[in-house]
Amino acid sequence: MQVHIPLKKVVDNSYDITIDTLPKMNFDTKVAVVTNQTVSKLHLDYLLSKISAKELHVITLQDGEEYKNQVSIDAILESLFENRFNRKSMLIAFGGGVIGDMTGYAASIFQRGIDFIQIPTTLLSQVDASVGGKTGMNNKYGKNLVGAFHQPKAVYIDPYFLTTLPQREFSAGVAEIVKMAVTFNKEFFTFLESADLNNPKVLQEVIKQAVQTKASVVAEDEKEKGIRAALNYGHTFGHVIENETQYKKFLHGEAVAIGMVMANEMAVKMNLMSEKEALRVKSLLEKYNLPVSYVIEDVRKFYETFFLDKKSSDSAITFVLPLGIGDFVITDKIDNGTIMCVLNKFGKN
Amino acid sequence: MQVHIPLKKVVDNSYDITIDTLPKMNFDTKVAVVTNQTVSKLHLDYLLSKISAKELHVITLQDGEEYKNQVSIDAILESLFENRFNRKSMLIAFGGGVIGDMTGYAASIFQRGIDFIQIPTTLLSQVDASVGGKTGMNNKYGKNLVGAFHQPKAVYIDPYFLTTLPQREFSAGVAEIVKMAVTFNKEFFTFLESADLNNPKVLQEVIKQAVQTKASVVAEDEKEKGIRAALNYGHTFGHVIENETQYKKFLHGEAVAIGMVMANEMAVKMNLMSEKEALRVKSLLEKYNLPVSYVIEDVRKFYETFFLDKKSSDSAITFVLPLGIGDFVITDKIDNGTIMCVLNKFGKN
Repeated sequence: MQVHIPLKKVVDNSYDITIDTLPKMNFDTKVAVVTNQTVSKLHLDYLLSKISAKELHVITLQDGEEYKNQVSIDAILESLFENRFNRKSMLIAFGGGVIGDMTGYAASIFQRGIDFIQIPTTLLSQVDASVGGKTGMNNKYGKNLVGAFHQPKAVYIDPYFLTTLPQREFSAGVAEIVKMAVTFNKEFFTFLESADLNNPKVLQEVIKQAVQTKASVVAEDEKEKGIRAALNYGHTFGHVIENETQYKKFLHGEAVAIGMVMANEMAVKMNLMSEKEALRVKSLLEKYNLPVSYVIEDVRKFYETFFLDKKSSDSAITFVLPLGIGDFVITDKIDNGTIMCVLNKFGKN
Repeated sequence: MQVHIPLKKVVDNSYDITIDTLPKMNFDTKVAVVTNQTVSKLHLDYLLSKISAKELHVITLQDGEEYKNQVSIDAILESLFENRFNRKSMLIAFGGGVIGDMTGYAASIFQRGIDFIQIPTTLLSQVDASVGGKTGMNNKYGKNLVGAFHQPKAVYIDPYFLTTLPQREFSAGVAEIVKMAVTFNKEFFTFLESADLNNPKVLQEVIKQAVQTKASVVAEDEKEKGIRAALNYGHTFGHVIENETQYKKFLHGEAVAIGMVMANEMAVKMNLMSEKEALRVKSLLEKYNLPVSYVIEDVRKFYETFFLDKKSSDSAITFVLPLGIGDFVITDKIDNGTIMCVLNKFGKN
């Protein structure tokens, strides 16, 4: 005998992203702001002045990708349980991508899921990480290998926070913007080549364009079964570079910048992109002092590490390669000879 | 400026529950069976004879509610990473509710979610735990406080596994069946009062009725925003009892049996149920040798522990109380005097 469980229904996870001065926020529930020491020192007072809640708690984690792990997740959960948070309580992620991903993940598993809001403070998290509902943490096998899809209730992007962002981190955010332009929008790419991001109006416009690109991709493919994978352009290589350098030498966006250069090298080899187009991408990255070269110490080991990346299936590696500028192909049909040839180009000898 | 992320769409998490001899299962992906030592000894060979897969792994955990924790979750994830499972891989939960909940939770967070199948081997997990997509683990604050809603792809209920189930565990499953009858189906309750569960045909029919009840509740309210909470009848008290006895003295179903008696006591006090109806429930529980009494050592401490239960909001405790037999009310409006009066009735003096 059989019993059918009908769970086909309309689910509405829609939300708004506001790119503007942070609004006043009122909650009739318990709220916990999750942040790190760096952001806390600079901006916590400002944030707290904007929030009223039934109870307001602050959970301050250490700053850095190396703390994006189970220990930090446990610290968040512990605080929620100690303060008797319940299913109606709310988390606010206040920081960069690391804080956003971990806060979202903690929100997704605390009592089987509670709401959270993203208030990203870095350019990278404003244009990319805070939008789309990917949450998670790293473990010894690699980045973001444990996590959940859990959409925020709202995202508040206040460019004011970028005024205190170190130049290097700002550039790392630009890398993700370049990524979206190269894969999805040629016009946006051309605009970026001559844009002056020191002009607040231009910066706000660029953030909006990037967020809109990301939003349309996520709306079409929330769970990354299709085109959302294109946002991994530069990431297949970038994740291995981060892994090899123990997440210490490069910021995420920097590793992605190098990864895009590597992917372009492969795209040129496959006749998907001209050398001139590859050079345009490289020049734009260099304009923001992003790293565009990397010496692979052990090519074989680099190759092996691809297979620990979750975006790879067991027998083949999936690459996102630009198709000129403004389009892309996703393929797992690159043969080992080509892969090794590209890697060797970056190899020690 | 504002960007809207439209994520309103039709999501189909429907699945079938088969109550019959285990079918042959073929997978063109990697598969891991998660089970415990007890079930493994009795039935693993039988299960494995039914499965063909690209790669088949077995993860064997220790048996018992006390292992429903982060250590076991980490053991499952570790095995998946070591064996290079990917987003297309499949988990099979093979055991009771503990195995089902943990396997589902591991499946929900591994690489942001992979598929899993439930093959429940205890009566409790066949009629209740395996249906509905609640997954999770315990921590020091209480039961199932960390987890996710993650629906299985299929549930296979083979009553054959019950032939090796200890009588005490069988009875614990009956407690959850009684729970569903009292809250949702008077006719089913009356049927149970005279049913002979030693008769395989009757048993299969009872499993089907219970699963159908659960299925219709879950279909209406997957995320427990409304009537699904009625399935917590007996659980508000039961969880505290399990917590006080460190999950050692009682099986979950046994604690729920006592919890139902306590809830009935409250319902009688509130004139929602007659003493005679409360007695009918108690008699049915006693027919299966389920515990129906409990001595609360410290009434104040018992009361405090309610607030650590996730089903309680911060200021009030939510109770599911029967309305006669076959209906219920969910309320957080019971005043402290009444609660203490009920608890004192079970108190030491």
